Amino acid sequence: MIVYVQTDQRTQMKDITDKVKENLKSLGEKNGLVHIFSMHTTAAVTINENADPDVAGDILRATERLVPFEAGYRHMEGNSAAHIKTSLFGQSETVVLKDGRLVLGTWQGIYFCEFDGPRSRKVHVKVIPDKL
Amino acid sequence: MIVYVQTDQRTQMKDITDKVKENLKSLGEKNGLVHIFSMHTTAAVTINENADPDVAGDILRATERLVPFEAGYRHMEGNSAAHIKTSLFGQSETVVLKDGRLVLGTWQGIYFCEFDGPRSRKVHVKVIPDKL
Amino acid sequence: MIVYVQTDQRTQMKDITDKVKENLKSLGEKNGLVHIFSMHTTAAVTINENADPDVAGDILRATERLVPFEAGYRHMEGNSAAHIKTSLFGQSETVVLKDGRLVLGTWQGIYFCEFDGPRSRKVHVKVIPDKL
Repeated sequence: MIVYVQTDQRTQMKDITDKVKENLKSLGEKNGLVHIFSMHTTAAVTINENADPDVAGDILRATERLVPFEAGYRHMEGNSAAHIKTSLFGQSETVVLKDGRLVLGTWQGIYFCEFDGPRSRKVHVKVIPDKL
Repeated sequence: MIVYVQTDQRTQMKDITDKVKENLKSLGEKNGLVHIFSMHTTAAVTINENADPDVAGDILRATERLVPFEAGYRHMEGNSAAHIKTSLFGQSETVVLKDGRLVLGTWQGIYFCEFDGPRSRKVHVKVIPDKL
Repeated sequence: MIVYVQTDQRTQMKDITDKVKENLKSLGEKNGLVHIFSMHTTAAVTINENADPDVAGDILRATERLVPFEAGYRHMEGNSAAHIKTSLFGQSETVVLKDGRLVLGTWQGIYFCEFDGPRSRKVHVKVIPDKL
């Protein structure tokens, strides 16, 4: 199933935890492994703190410092930094589903990481159910 | 099932391969995918060399150089570096379980990566069994 | 099942999407989660653009800038940079298999990332099937 995400900045972390939960309800599975996968090469999925929005800001600023938007890249589209950040963060996260609930720590939220926005994006969510 | 990890330094890589194996024995599954997930936003899970302890030290020092503990972060708790490192390393690893054994390369060990210790930490371990 | 990858440079991203697809055909599964896992501590798996080869080149060069081959590491084998890069990129990727096809975005390819080559490498590919 596809979760649609509209970003409105060049780099942005959007908390998609609630969207993922809504989609899981409609799937009806109660136990298994949930796979959350960005279908793009310039946008990632990560898990991090969902309480203080400064955390996401600090993550994006630190990543920009590590991988500047301009740094003599050869790729003609000019968005190499976004590709690099995506490989560093990773395309997907997997979270356990137990009795219909995501097994997340107290402060963990699932974030879509836009590195080349704003754009309309797709996240593929799939449950691999337990055999029981 | 929860694996408890007590860390005793601010940044530390603890080899939890044996702990994971013990837990798998008690679960009784023989084949499937093992999901090893840090339930925290300032601690990650990674797989790397378990022979020479200098490897883990080099990894931690290089990560500290890339993401310094102090760098003008806005998050008031003062541990933004730990959040950033966690998103770079990733919350979880997945390893195949085959005939009751983890499918790991010769030098691969599973590490819990503490980036904001010392603390008492929880790692969620789950097996998604094969259908057979 | 093992996919063999021969690398011929010190750092290199090799597109293994077709190799993975061929192996999936022989396994015969049609739906589930595909786990693609580097059995090494100095080589990773990532997903990124497979259209313009400059993207992979930019990724490798940026990673080299972040984690230089020589930087006063203690590990005697001299390949600490490769270990560090592997933990940043991650050992594995998971991709959904649906009706016999990998669920990938238009530009996404699966890459084996050699960070300490040239070498003969092994990638473990496993399908966790849906229960249906």
